[in-house]
Amino acid sequence: MNTASTTSLSFSSRLASTIKRRGSAACIGLDPRRDQLPSCLGANTAVDPKNLAAIYSRFCCDVIDVVAPLVPIVKPQLACFEMLGPHGMTALADVIAHAHAKGLLVLADGKRGDIGSTAEAYADGWLAGPWGTDALTVNPYLGLDSIEPFVKLASERNAGIFVLVKTSNPGSKDFQELLADGRTLYQHVASGVEQFAARTAAGETYGAVGAVVGATWPRQLDELRAAMPHTWILVPGFGKQGGRAADVRGAFHSDGLGALVVSARDVIFAHARPEMNTGLSESQWQTAVDRACRDMIERLAADTPAGVLRK
Amino acid sequence: MNTASTTSLSFSSRLASTIKRRGSAACIGLDPRRDQLPSCLGANTAVDPKNLAAIYSRFCCDVIDVVAPLVPIVKPQLACFEMLGPHGMTALADVIAHAHAKGLLVLADGKRGDIGSTAEAYADGWLAGPWGTDALTVNPYLGLDSIEPFVKLASERNAGIFVLVKTSNPGSKDFQELLADGRTLYQHVASGVEQFAARTAAGETYGAVGAVVGATWPRQLDELRAAMPHTWILVPGFGKQGGRAADVRGAFHSDGLGALVVSARDVIFAHARPEMNTGLSESQWQTAVDRACRDMIERLAADTPAGVLRK
Repeated sequence: MNTASTTSLSFSSRLASTIKRRGSAACIGLDPRRDQLPSCLGANTAVDPKNLAAIYSRFCCDVIDVVAPLVPIVKPQLACFEMLGPHGMTALADVIAHAHAKGLLVLADGKRGDIGSTAEAYADGWLAGPWGTDALTVNPYLGLDSIEPFVKLASERNAGIFVLVKTSNPGSKDFQELLADGRTLYQHVASGVEQFAARTAAGETYGAVGAVVGATWPRQLDELRAAMPHTWILVPGFGKQGGRAADVRGAFHSDGLGALVVSARDVIFAHARPEMNTGLSESQWQTAVDRACRDMIERLAADTPAGVLRK
Repeated sequence: MNTASTTSLSFSSRLASTIKRRGSAACIGLDPRRDQLPSCLGANTAVDPKNLAAIYSRFCCDVIDVVAPLVPIVKPQLACFEMLGPHGMTALADVIAHAHAKGLLVLADGKRGDIGSTAEAYADGWLAGPWGTDALTVNPYLGLDSIEPFVKLASERNAGIFVLVKTSNPGSKDFQELLADGRTLYQHVASGVEQFAARTAAGETYGAVGAVVGATWPRQLDELRAAMPHTWILVPGFGKQGGRAADVRGAFHSDGLGALVVSARDVIFAHARPEMNTGLSESQWQTAVDRACRDMIERLAADTPAGVLRK
């Protein structure tokens, strides 16, 4: 179940080799939502959280079966499982185990952040710990000393973290773009992230610490790629939130590495997209997922340096 | 289990009335840690997460039995349960249910934060949802639109949120004290929090939105109490992290309301404090918890406006 602890390779090098093997830098977000699942799965008529959690687990595992040959990594959205209570967390554990069994890396999207021994507890849980996940998204608001415990454990356990820098939502301007000492808050955070990344790179190109930068900010992706040479950039907001392939070009280095582009709803709920579900009944929803996943990968290959990954 | 959904009273008014009934504004943090539990509970020799989770649950429920007559609210630290995997989450649910059965309000300390429908999912889970908790701590880094879904659901469900403003750790200076447009980041956040609080107050003194300000910053507690008249202030960092009763004075209004002061380790691990465990065997650790909890309440009563709560 726990791939990270059974390897002596860093998260970064495992990520790079899996990206090359798949020929793709796409990350599929696993965000099950009751009212968006194919109706044949019965989520809308499930009467208790235990049943709904079982449906979420089955749905995500079925998505994983489709995307595992195509992408290097999946990103379960912890909120979607947490909202079902303890049964949701059991379903999450099943989904993580299935993703690993299919050769995928797993990034827990929890945006955790706390101080001292509490940060250590989150790191212990989510970085190659009992949940088995290989990496975790982290919120930097509490300061650099709150990120340190995550950096330390990620480095020790060959796991990774992705720190929020510039998020994809319009409201990211409220605080992240405040200008202090000639730099925006997100630039201050990026500077700290790059230092953590460089420190943990240990002679490799990238360190154990990545950044989250939304696909909705093409200019900032260019700027941050240049400012953070040792940092993987996780790019959410592709598709539904408005980001197009050309918008995320700047997140990549010229060798096609350095970025992971996330799509969730556009791929996992592709059964509801007319351009993906043509000729399919709803029970064939996995075929729509396959089409949407391949479509995303092709668009990334056409408009970004990720094209060089496809020999 | 779910007190919030069975009442038509706002979180704020339930909090105020429980504080008055107990005569105390202390919040006990439930942060079980394997190596700090009384050794008679066997945590250090528990071999699997399921056994350890059961010990955490028993320990927290035993703490609750002691503090329930003395304090209005407890604050389980989600990280401590998450780090045990799914079994830890089941233990957490048991602890929450036990706290409610004993008449306590329950604040989930998860420091969650995300955007759009993901923020809605966290809010749905933790604000009078399947976990049954009455309130949740929230991280503001993603911006005001990321806090909105929490505010909306807290208001609808008579639940509450506490948004991180100025945290107790030294590294809170890194970003929270950056100066932009003549105000620090934490002051910008505080301004947004107060607006949410005022908007949700609905004629009452306080709204559904509180703030987290560390006990290690007495000057900022004074300043923020004045700047956020409609906002409950949750004050962690009392005791072990260095904050004393006099330091948290500024968080209160003169009627003894407006603040909740958190102590976790000093109370729940009081068996390890020589001044609290005199004459006790380790199996009498609950007596040490009782002494430490009363000691904290007395110190708050002596040195803060909370003294007026004790008739």
